Amino acid sequence: MSRRARIHYPPLRDKVTDAGTAAAHIQDGTNLFISGFTSGYPKLVPRELVRRAQAGEEFKVNLFAGASTGESVDGILAEAGVVAWRRPYMSDRTMRRLINDNQIRFKDDHLSMLSGQVRAGNWGPVDVAIVEAVAITEDGNLIPTMSVGNTPTYVKKADKIIIEITHEPEELYGLHDIFIPEDPPYRMPIPIYRAADRIGKPHIDMDPSRVVAILFSEEEDCCAVFTPPDQAARRIAEHILDFVRHEISKKRLPASLPWQSGVGDVANAVLSGFLEDDFYHNLDIYSEVLQDSVLDLIDMGTVRVASGSAMTLSYKGRQRFFNELYRYKDKIVLRPVEISNSPEVIRRLGVIAINTAIEVDIYGHVNSTHVMGSQLMNGIGGSGDFLRNGALTFIVTPSTAKGDRISAIVPMVSHVDHNEHSVDIIVTEHGLVDTRPLTPRQVAEQVITTCAHPDYREMLWEYYQRAIHANGGHEPHDLSEVFAMHQRFLRTGSMRKDC
Amino acid sequence: MSRRARIHYPPLRDKVTDAGTAAAHIQDGTNLFISGFTSGYPKLVPRELVRRAQAGEEFKVNLFAGASTGESVDGILAEAGVVAWRRPYMSDRTMRRLINDNQIRFKDDHLSMLSGQVRAGNWGPVDVAIVEAVAITEDGNLIPTMSVGNTPTYVKKADKIIIEITHEPEELYGLHDIFIPEDPPYRMPIPIYRAADRIGKPHIDMDPSRVVAILFSEEEDCCAVFTPPDQAARRIAEHILDFVRHEISKKRLPASLPWQSGVGDVANAVLSGFLEDDFYHNLDIYSEVLQDSVLDLIDMGTVRVASGSAMTLSYKGRQRFFNELYRYKDKIVLRPVEISNSPEVIRRLGVIAINTAIEVDIYGHVNSTHVMGSQLMNGIGGSGDFLRNGALTFIVTPSTAKGDRISAIVPMVSHVDHNEHSVDIIVTEHGLVDTRPLTPRQVAEQVITTCAHPDYREMLWEYYQRAIHANGGHEPHDLSEVFAMHQRFLRTGSMRKDC
Ligand SMILES: CC(C)(COP(=O)(O)OP(=O)(O)OC[C@H]1O[C@@H](n2cnc3c(N)ncnc32)[C@H](O)[C@@H]1OP(=O)(O)O)[C@@H](O)C(=O)NCCC(=O)NCCS
Ligand SMILES: CC(C)(COP(=O)(O)OP(=O)(O)OC[C@H]1O[C@@H](n2cnc3c(N)ncnc32)[C@H](O)[C@@H]1OP(=O)(O)O)[C@@H](O)C(=O)NCCC(=O)NCCS
Repeated sequence: MSRRARIHYPPLRDKVTDAGTAAAHIQDGTNLFISGFTSGYPKLVPRELVRRAQAGEEFKVNLFAGASTGESVDGILAEAGVVAWRRPYMSDRTMRRLINDNQIRFKDDHLSMLSGQVRAGNWGPVDVAIVEAVAITEDGNLIPTMSVGNTPTYVKKADKIIIEITHEPEELYGLHDIFIPEDPPYRMPIPIYRAADRIGKPHIDMDPSRVVAILFSEEEDCCAVFTPPDQAARRIAEHILDFVRHEISKKRLPASLPWQSGVGDVANAVLSGFLEDDFYHNLDIYSEVLQDSVLDLIDMGTVRVASGSAMTLSYKGRQRFFNELYRYKDKIVLRPVEISNSPEVIRRLGVIAINTAIEVDIYGHVNSTHVMGSQLMNGIGGSGDFLRNGALTFIVTPSTAKGDRISAIVPMVSHVDHNEHSVDIIVTEHGLVDTRPLTPRQVAEQVITTCAHPDYREMLWEYYQRAIHANGGHEPHDLSEVFAMHQRFLRTGSMRKDC
Repeated sequence: MSRRARIHYPPLRDKVTDAGTAAAHIQDGTNLFISGFTSGYPKLVPRELVRRAQAGEEFKVNLFAGASTGESVDGILAEAGVVAWRRPYMSDRTMRRLINDNQIRFKDDHLSMLSGQVRAGNWGPVDVAIVEAVAITEDGNLIPTMSVGNTPTYVKKADKIIIEITHEPEELYGLHDIFIPEDPPYRMPIPIYRAADRIGKPHIDMDPSRVVAILFSEEEDCCAVFTPPDQAARRIAEHILDFVRHEISKKRLPASLPWQSGVGDVANAVLSGFLEDDFYHNLDIYSEVLQDSVLDLIDMGTVRVASGSAMTLSYKGRQRFFNELYRYKDKIVLRPVEISNSPEVIRRLGVIAINTAIEVDIYGHVNSTHVMGSQLMNGIGGSGDFLRNGALTFIVTPSTAKGDRISAIVPMVSHVDHNEHSVDIIVTEHGLVDTRPLTPRQVAEQVITTCAHPDYREMLWEYYQRAIHANGGHEPHDLSEVFAMHQRFLRTGSMRKDC
């Protein structure tokens, strides 16, 4: 069937054009809002913008996405030097370098708060929205691809809309649940009572008169590559599953709370851990990004339903998902990120949240974003939305990084994204500390002796004792040497003393 | 009328007794949960416990309140050495000292999360609850005094209940709105759509069979003392009111969002500022603690309705409030703190939140709790609930403390309670920075040149330049001297170089 047939609203068929014509709507200073949230980002127009830059045209755009996009958007646009501003979360190597060099302006946001800010006009006019879609409905509305993110709001507010129609199956129709809440002071409750409740429409409402160009795309998202979980990730997953099993058995936790698991290998390992564990069944997932492991868990019958804002699948995962869409569509729902990450809903459902840290300090404060306090890694993403509102919150990290030259447990984190009150449980491969019934000093003692890598325990313990001696207090610190480990790393390439 | 008549449920009249008999239910190791949230705390039983300690009895209790209580509870119990644990927020001088000395174990919590944790059993059994009340209803339920806090949950979970009936007017009946949400996974939306909506009962449900003692109390809350706002507080208030007025005029902010204002003199100054400003009218307050200024604003017709969890009034304020209760009861509603501080409701209503910091750093991270990183001041209270979920969030502080010897703007805060993503606007008496459209580096530049005290601007600017030079990055820091100002203060008693 011709791709043209995917434009079920005939008046829009005239808008089919080429990338050059479409991209002509984007000029120096354009506020460019794109779909995409680890997946589902447009590919053709970004490439055309790069072509123009390489041909010598001088221009810069302000680039706003749902969250991270692939190398094929953030990477090439950054490389081409055409990005003035970028918001929010990104994870591309080149873009990261340029942000840290102050060549690209970047601001991070809690993902749940972002669509509302755009609707309030705080981000300036939405000049152009570029959206990846599988089809346009008979009424001129949009069916997105593998992510929702902020696309509904971007489409709602855009002066001009460009659509890239892909060849992913049109049967994605029915996967999405699109609901834009009213803004304060007229907002009403978000009526999700169980993880998979559907409260919206299967399409994104669109005013067809604002569509300026439609392209047909043969491109695919860069597929995710998952490495099998390493020993540390497996140990972390075991600690978590053991702990939750124990809490449920002791009736301290209801058996049916939904789970959220962040991005990255450890997060994936936790979900894989369910596969080998026959205690858990009939699980609900209320998360942000759904990865391959969710398909496995659905196939096993361990997961009943999964809600998120995007799916990031491996090449094999994609094939499998598309082949049996009819089956997965009953079990998976993709929502706007302001809904998947809504504090209201997360707290109502009582989500068990698991997110990864760069470093954690002895009192339980967490750095998720800035290496050695200054260099941005990716961004806070949705981690704050889930940590701050979950019913039981885990922060996980391998106890060391860079071949044990860095301890992920430090006296004070060099940047704070989540403070001690947002973190219930701290987990490394060495063990787990439930901070809830402990004073800060008790937390410090247990984190040092349980979570820290054995090679760093003495160093941390000595710091803690000196801090008590020097200043005492509720969270004893000695500010004169609180970052000595970080400074040693910056000087010598290792936090160890013998280097 | 005899005080006995306030026990409208006759079977409970037999439980009237003396403080000694009541306090006998409290022994070494008892988990003691008391009413009280800046006001409305029991006074007789605490005094009896102190008497026992002074008579030589050795015992310690675990003391859990709604938030801070007066000197007459936290102060005397701490002094008597009978407190093993204390949670959450407190603000008593003696108790603070003993917490910082690690003689009293203390853990702070976001106030919105606390009742749920107690219901889940995470704080251990609720052995005894002591509640201040104005009456017991015909059905054996409780009418609290000037605060709600966590009392409904403490009463619900308590094995034994002790009631102190005060002489405050019984006509407080109807002021409170008591609603305990179901816990996850069976929670439903909290159906507050406008600031003053009433969704619960005018009394606290109680099982009368668990009441072990009733006392009649002649005691009153220590009245709040408000000093007239100083110059700095007035300037801060002006900056905020000007800014919001401007945003509303430019249609970037709806005119009818409700306001929250934290505790302390600056917070009170902002509300007083409304009195002299004829732009604002028909305001709603959705806050935590209501102070005298709210009565003024209601009388002026500037405030339409005010919702909170407690009222802390001056002596005069109390007289005025009690004299015209019938009038204020239409306009004021007191709720459990899990509702007044609910992220769901705060985000739905779009609260404009104003909270006070101890120090703020150049990138907008906030310390509300720990002086020089180690010494606890009071606790995080509800500041995180409001900052993290408000539609527009202000953090305010005078630019200096301790007679200008401390700069409240520092390179890096020595403790983080709220990170840059929770803080929209930073205000000191010198000016205001709207961080929302700025990168971290732009925030630093503006905060240094606009908010910092002129005497400290050069020092901060030089730090910032050296950090860029030394490490660059998205939030440049030089960890080797990031706390140099704090260290200088600890060494010399001043952050200034010339001392
Ligand atoms: C924290 C985060 C970066 C970890 O990512 P990950 O892929 O699980 O972890 P990795 O171990 O591969 O670490 C990523 C990089 O950080 C480095 N790193 C990790 N800990 C470090 C530390 N303490 N100091 C310095 N570098 C560190 C790793 O060496 C690795 O570097 P490389 O890319 O040069 O190999 C990632 O989870 C993240 O961006 N989180 C914030 C957003 C979030 O939580 N989103 C989910 C919400 S739904
Ligand atoms: C931050 C907080 C302590 C400020 O209180 P305040 O009464 O407005 O402020 P003050 O200026 O009187 O400061 C209180 C004390 O801290 C000291 N202080 C303030 N800034 C300081 C700084 N940067 N370094 C050291 N000490 C500082 C003051 O000197 C004063 O000391 P004193 O008691 O010895 O006189 C108070 O608002 C608080 O506890 N906040 C956290 C909880 C909260 O925000 N609750 C409201 C939520 S609804």
